[in-house]
Amino acid sequence: MKYEVLVIGGGGASYPGAFRLSKAGKTVIMADPKGVLGGNCLYQGCIPSKTIREMAELHLRSKRFFANISPNFELIQDHKDKVQEKRFKQHDEEIKENNVEFVKGEVQVTGDKTAKIIGEKEVDVEFNYLILGTGSEPFVPRIPGSEHCITSDDLYKYKTEIRKLPSSMVIIGGGYIALETATIFKALGTEVHVLVRSDKILRSIDQRLVEILKKMIDPEIDIKFNSPVLEVEKNGNELKVTFSQKGEKKEIITEKVVMATGRKPVLPKGFEKLGVKVSQKGVEVDESIRTNIPYVFAPGDVNGISPYFHSAVRQSLVASRNILTGRNTDFVNFSSIPVTVFTIPPIAYVGIITNRDSSVIEASYKFERDSRAQIYDELEGEVRLFFEKGSLRALGGWVAGIDAPSLINEIGYAVHNGLTAKQMAEFADQHPMSNESITNAVRSII
Amino acid sequence: MKYEVLVIGGGGASYPGAFRLSKAGKTVIMADPKGVLGGNCLYQGCIPSKTIREMAELHLRSKRFFANISPNFELIQDHKDKVQEKRFKQHDEEIKENNVEFVKGEVQVTGDKTAKIIGEKEVDVEFNYLILGTGSEPFVPRIPGSEHCITSDDLYKYKTEIRKLPSSMVIIGGGYIALETATIFKALGTEVHVLVRSDKILRSIDQRLVEILKKMIDPEIDIKFNSPVLEVEKNGNELKVTFSQKGEKKEIITEKVVMATGRKPVLPKGFEKLGVKVSQKGVEVDESIRTNIPYVFAPGDVNGISPYFHSAVRQSLVASRNILTGRNTDFVNFSSIPVTVFTIPPIAYVGIITNRDSSVIEASYKFERDSRAQIYDELEGEVRLFFEKGSLRALGGWVAGIDAPSLINEIGYAVHNGLTAKQMAEFADQHPMSNESITNAVRSII
Amino acid sequence: MKYEVLVIGGGGASYPGAFRLSKAGKTVIMADPKGVLGGNCLYQGCIPSKTIREMAELHLRSKRFFANISPNFELIQDHKDKVQEKRFKQHDEEIKENNVEFVKGEVQVTGDKTAKIIGEKEVDVEFNYLILGTGSEPFVPRIPGSEHCITSDDLYKYKTEIRKLPSSMVIIGGGYIALETATIFKALGTEVHVLVRSDKILRSIDQRLVEILKKMIDPEIDIKFNSPVLEVEKNGNELKVTFSQKGEKKEIITEKVVMATGRKPVLPKGFEKLGVKVSQKGVEVDESIRTNIPYVFAPGDVNGISPYFHSAVRQSLVASRNILTGRNTDFVNFSSIPVTVFTIPPIAYVGIITNRDSSVIEASYKFERDSRAQIYDELEGEVRLFFEKGSLRALGGWVAGIDAPSLINEIGYAVHNGLTAKQMAEFADQHPMSNESITNAVRSII
Amino acid sequence: MKYEVLVIGGGGASYPGAFRLSKAGKTVIMADPKGVLGGNCLYQGCIPSKTIREMAELHLRSKRFFANISPNFELIQDHKDKVQEKRFKQHDEEIKENNVEFVKGEVQVTGDKTAKIIGEKEVDVEFNYLILGTGSEPFVPRIPGSEHCITSDDLYKYKTEIRKLPSSMVIIGGGYIALETATIFKALGTEVHVLVRSDKILRSIDQRLVEILKKMIDPEIDIKFNSPVLEVEKNGNELKVTFSQKGEKKEIITEKVVMATGRKPVLPKGFEKLGVKVSQKGVEVDESIRTNIPYVFAPGDVNGISPYFHSAVRQSLVASRNILTGRNTDFVNFSSIPVTVFTIPPIAYVGIITNRDSSVIEASYKFERDSRAQIYDELEGEVRLFFEKGSLRALGGWVAGIDAPSLINEIGYAVHNGLTAKQMAEFADQHPMSNESITNAVRSII
Repeated sequence: MKYEVLVIGGGGASYPGAFRLSKAGKTVIMADPKGVLGGNCLYQGCIPSKTIREMAELHLRSKRFFANISPNFELIQDHKDKVQEKRFKQHDEEIKENNVEFVKGEVQVTGDKTAKIIGEKEVDVEFNYLILGTGSEPFVPRIPGSEHCITSDDLYKYKTEIRKLPSSMVIIGGGYIALETATIFKALGTEVHVLVRSDKILRSIDQRLVEILKKMIDPEIDIKFNSPVLEVEKNGNELKVTFSQKGEKKEIITEKVVMATGRKPVLPKGFEKLGVKVSQKGVEVDESIRTNIPYVFAPGDVNGISPYFHSAVRQSLVASRNILTGRNTDFVNFSSIPVTVFTIPPIAYVGIITNRDSSVIEASYKFERDSRAQIYDELEGEVRLFFEKGSLRALGGWVAGIDAPSLINEIGYAVHNGLTAKQMAEFADQHPMSNESITNAVRSII
Repeated sequence: MKYEVLVIGGGGASYPGAFRLSKAGKTVIMADPKGVLGGNCLYQGCIPSKTIREMAELHLRSKRFFANISPNFELIQDHKDKVQEKRFKQHDEEIKENNVEFVKGEVQVTGDKTAKIIGEKEVDVEFNYLILGTGSEPFVPRIPGSEHCITSDDLYKYKTEIRKLPSSMVIIGGGYIALETATIFKALGTEVHVLVRSDKILRSIDQRLVEILKKMIDPEIDIKFNSPVLEVEKNGNELKVTFSQKGEKKEIITEKVVMATGRKPVLPKGFEKLGVKVSQKGVEVDESIRTNIPYVFAPGDVNGISPYFHSAVRQSLVASRNILTGRNTDFVNFSSIPVTVFTIPPIAYVGIITNRDSSVIEASYKFERDSRAQIYDELEGEVRLFFEKGSLRALGGWVAGIDAPSLINEIGYAVHNGLTAKQMAEFADQHPMSNESITNAVRSII
Repeated sequence: MKYEVLVIGGGGASYPGAFRLSKAGKTVIMADPKGVLGGNCLYQGCIPSKTIREMAELHLRSKRFFANISPNFELIQDHKDKVQEKRFKQHDEEIKENNVEFVKGEVQVTGDKTAKIIGEKEVDVEFNYLILGTGSEPFVPRIPGSEHCITSDDLYKYKTEIRKLPSSMVIIGGGYIALETATIFKALGTEVHVLVRSDKILRSIDQRLVEILKKMIDPEIDIKFNSPVLEVEKNGNELKVTFSQKGEKKEIITEKVVMATGRKPVLPKGFEKLGVKVSQKGVEVDESIRTNIPYVFAPGDVNGISPYFHSAVRQSLVASRNILTGRNTDFVNFSSIPVTVFTIPPIAYVGIITNRDSSVIEASYKFERDSRAQIYDELEGEVRLFFEKGSLRALGGWVAGIDAPSLINEIGYAVHNGLTAKQMAEFADQHPMSNESITNAVRSII
Repeated sequence: MKYEVLVIGGGGASYPGAFRLSKAGKTVIMADPKGVLGGNCLYQGCIPSKTIREMAELHLRSKRFFANISPNFELIQDHKDKVQEKRFKQHDEEIKENNVEFVKGEVQVTGDKTAKIIGEKEVDVEFNYLILGTGSEPFVPRIPGSEHCITSDDLYKYKTEIRKLPSSMVIIGGGYIALETATIFKALGTEVHVLVRSDKILRSIDQRLVEILKKMIDPEIDIKFNSPVLEVEKNGNELKVTFSQKGEKKEIITEKVVMATGRKPVLPKGFEKLGVKVSQKGVEVDESIRTNIPYVFAPGDVNGISPYFHSAVRQSLVASRNILTGRNTDFVNFSSIPVTVFTIPPIAYVGIITNRDSSVIEASYKFERDSRAQIYDELEGEVRLFFEKGSLRALGGWVAGIDAPSLINEIGYAVHNGLTAKQMAEFADQHPMSNESITNAVRSII
């Protein structure tokens, strides 16, 4: 059948654009093997992991002020599943509201502008435009015994079988999934070891910020640097992780081993027929989300530029806008997309957060002086803002500590809209909220 | 002694401006009878009340997910005092850092440009400029038995004697202090009655928003409208509150009666010597914070325009800036100052939130569809944004429900900086935070 | 034949949208009886009148500094025709570049979504969307002898027969066409009388600004207020205009009588079949340019809101954008569209230029102090800016005098983008250009 | 005598700040050897040269449309002197209005915070702050016979003796003064030769823009590249200029030789006593205009960063603001300061106008398609805009051709305020003005 747009995938990279196009009168067919919208994010990614994270943080705070409560992990997992179900249902309603045809199934590209959906039904599709929102999946390196390991998908997925809190856990990797999982499970009571291949965690993030995080996280989390894993062995209910450290073999006995060694793009079968360029990082697109093949757009994780749900949604809308106007009229401002590492405590940043050439003025405020941080007795961390010298335009900022994932949006507004320190300093952030630390930082230089 | 600037009061209306002036080389003397900085806000206002509020909310959330914990009010009050102490100390350091002379004492105006400070020492002051940051105090109407009542100041003040949770409480008034106190103490376990003279609560706030709040707050809070209080009598440890309802006398027996019947400006002795105009609302100033007497500035609660700490701070800075430049070069943008009612759940708003002349486009998003609201199972409320037709410039917005006091700042940035719906829609708020509801609201109209 | 979009008219309201839609892949047919693009503006409106205007101004300036040159009106008209030809040709190329079908002919609406083009060929058109860019035409009131009068269209149209400078001219009307024509022909050497029915000229413009204009224009232009015309009689080569003044009949003998008594919308035959609402002013649309019939858009003069070419172009683009996205996602910000009265000297304004409720701060600078005004010895007039109190956001502004039609764009940028006085004051306008008067005005209040 | 601020110089770098400081209550003394305000710009720089330039352009335009008029250079010089006188008088009034003490005289620094003014009277000054607005002067290289040459100062200065149009002129140099003078005098009828040492003119300007200029200027201007001057000899009323070209000696006989070989900062006597750092370019300052000595500010030409009057004025205000607030709270945004080369035709630019790393999107519009360019038959040149990829924020732009010095301000507003292409595209520039070319350029990419 002929459709103006074929959308592969049902996540944040796919449905926002699909809905827009359908509303504008385009015929749209969307396919996803999961048969539900929301993509990895909802099925096994940010939504379930952040549900558990919030419960873990709530538990820590309650313990701090009220009593030594033990969290019930099974109840937490039940709550997580319910949140996921609520959203699956919500998305089902949206499909109907937006009049998009949605098919549960895998897509196989069969030609230049043709594909086949193989799933609950088989559909031959001719299309004028293709939105490739296929996302990414965990990359599991070949290590002897890697079959005994789980990934974050297993921990967080809908109806996961892991409903009992692991007493101990080895996490392999030093990226954001590794660190988030480490701090969340530590907060819930698991003994956590993190094995990092190199001497750095969160390598893609400015290391000044990472250093702050390292001081903030629970010191009982055992992070071993320069410790590549050699083998994972199963002995009954136990796993033995062997790793190398300074040329010596060492081992840890643990209940669970979580591989958090990065993610890789997912491409549909027959993808090569399209002639779309793919690099190491993913499908190549620029800010217009268009690939080298003008009728193919690749928003979201599949392009590897900014693998976050909120970024994927914006990318999807940009792709749909450019399909509607027939040329590149909308662009993603990647430099204003906030990034959060949802550790406990969290860090978040947006835009330019370095000062390589002294063309930047920094402004900061420590949370130890912030009312809300004091109210919660979470005094570590800071807000730090970066302004262009001369114009005083906001270039970027970070928040380490309390409310980081929320505060970063206010800073992101400044960066996204080219606001100046003066404009920011004249705004009166609500007292006594941690947003005041943004005001206080910027007023310190004005 | 001669000073360029006399600053009366030590709160948010006073010290920020005093510090700026001192840094710019002006000689500044500041006086406050409390002998500590922070004003009412810190001593008995927002800081202590919001500390208790956060503890109450935390308690509710813990109860929802973990167990039926009973909060220990005495520990909460201890924590509150500690937060206050931490801030008193912090302010003491700031006085030193900023090289301002601070005297504990009352100020009496003795002439055009002279005053006397009477307190720990007596100082005769000649000044060129006066910053009047004297704030406000509770207004207690004359009712028989009003001497048996307390005010919010008594509940929240530093080292308050009220350290046991009242089992029951009658709150007289329908303003924000009444409502906040009602929901906070209800959350902690107190039986709460609110007696409102008229048929409305929060009269100065758009009633569409108030209606949302009314549906959100704990329905067990007993709000009686059109119920003016006639008398309060003391019988042993009990208080009997007699009020009128539809022409009938009714009564409630309770442990505490809280008068939350508004606040009135505080003026120093001898104030009339200055010739400064005062209206019903307070000392008259415009956006430059200058009074009719060019060398007298009146920031903060004393002018009654926008009686919030964060507004007072900005006003204080504006006054100091206008003193430095010798003319009105800085102005407060009152229409972008966020206002929060810290009820549980909270509401917050900024700017224009009505659509009287159909020149406004509204955009909204219900929290029942928001990830974070779902994670916390706090599904009531919404984000609502107001844009000017044509320009699509953000005019105002409200948030009712989860994270309102934080989200309102992001909306406030839009209003303060004249951002358009299109600019807002192109920003990608962090997932899965409630800030996404702002994005979702604005994208629904773009 | 079936087209997605029928565009009626070939002017600024029509072709920009038509081109956009075609580029986005929509099939578009456009029809105009003139058979050339550019509409009235190019054929007989702004382009030819402003060509003559610039020549007249250049002539005045040359006379001022060099010598008493007599302009050769015939050469000026020849130049005007050449400018028009150049643009006709340019538009012909654009039609080809943009792949739009253009038919010379009148459109007759024949049904809900059908029309017939009758002209060089006859085409039956079925359409999904209609863009009605039919513009306006001079409104000539019924006066005895009105057949002896000409309109501005006759003066300025392509290949007009009026190629000899009239020695004298009576202009009936007090609108912008009347005033522009009066000052242009006076500058060229014609004796000019203007008969105004009421006691005001330029009634739709703030009268403070009009008063400035009245003082600036050549005092030899004879403007008679409260002077309704009764009759125009022809005697050989002369025309006798009889008008009433204070109850008395008076007369003027003149060579040409120009009716400049307003314009009225042009509607195609069969228009009533569409069910589109039309008011006194024109076809009813809002900022989305959509009429009450969702598939009909009416940009430009035909809606009477903002009858200027540059406004029509923007409106046309908004209509096309809303057709593409299938809903109202783009809007015209009418309050930021600059308006110029191209008198000699000119006036121009944008946005809000009154201060009805004292919520506005005004800033102004007189041209007598401006370098460029001094260089040209054109010292009359001023720049005046209007800011919102508090936010200091630019609400509007006017320029009376030198370079007004150019300067108003810089002010328009401020209004359109919600810039504040502070932002404007920090920009350094190029010296020694009249733009500095904007800087000087705004810096006077900061 | 003791003053809070000593201001050295009376030009654009000096008086704006002096007036601000005085209005804020500071005691200010200002000294300039010319005894009048306005600095070089008014006395012998931009004001007189641009007066002559405008007359020359007017003359060209008149000739194009009306007749072969010969300009009367003596009348032009008289007019120029009158413009200068008008402004001298205007500044005299401003001194009184602003209550600044102004002394005609040279300043000699005598100590850390002391100086002596030697002139119409002698004043010993003690100061807290120093504003050094001493500007620059022509740099005349040592060439045999350089004493027979004049500089632009001689051509343009108040009451200059050069009141007869030179029949021929050799200009030595390839900077903006050389090019401006060349095109102005060519337009007036002088035979013009330009001798450029290297293979480039306007070396500090992006050469893509310079190439456009080279094609636009009168081809009869004889520019000789790689032609260093060896000697200038006087023979009666004639001058013989000997220069080298490809190793050969060549010569030109001419009436006037203008040295336009750059400018150098002017420093007061005793300046070294202050310990202020000076580089090759001038006194070292950053965006706060403060030197390494915290109480010394150096706005304007003396710092060599941005040697334009409008930049100097802004720098002066920034210096005064930072003196008032006692710290760096105001900054010059050098990247948004427009620069114009007032050749005939002119070029102008602002911000970033290169695309070195492909992170820029360019948008352009040729003047041959612009209404106003067509009306004036000045079809060469273009508007070109540079936007950041992703954000589409305006980074810079240039205008080559008609109205460049005016249009650049509108582009400058976009750059200064971080406006995006989308915001710009939604503004409707006044028709039929050349500002439309900005709209047309930006709309071509949106």
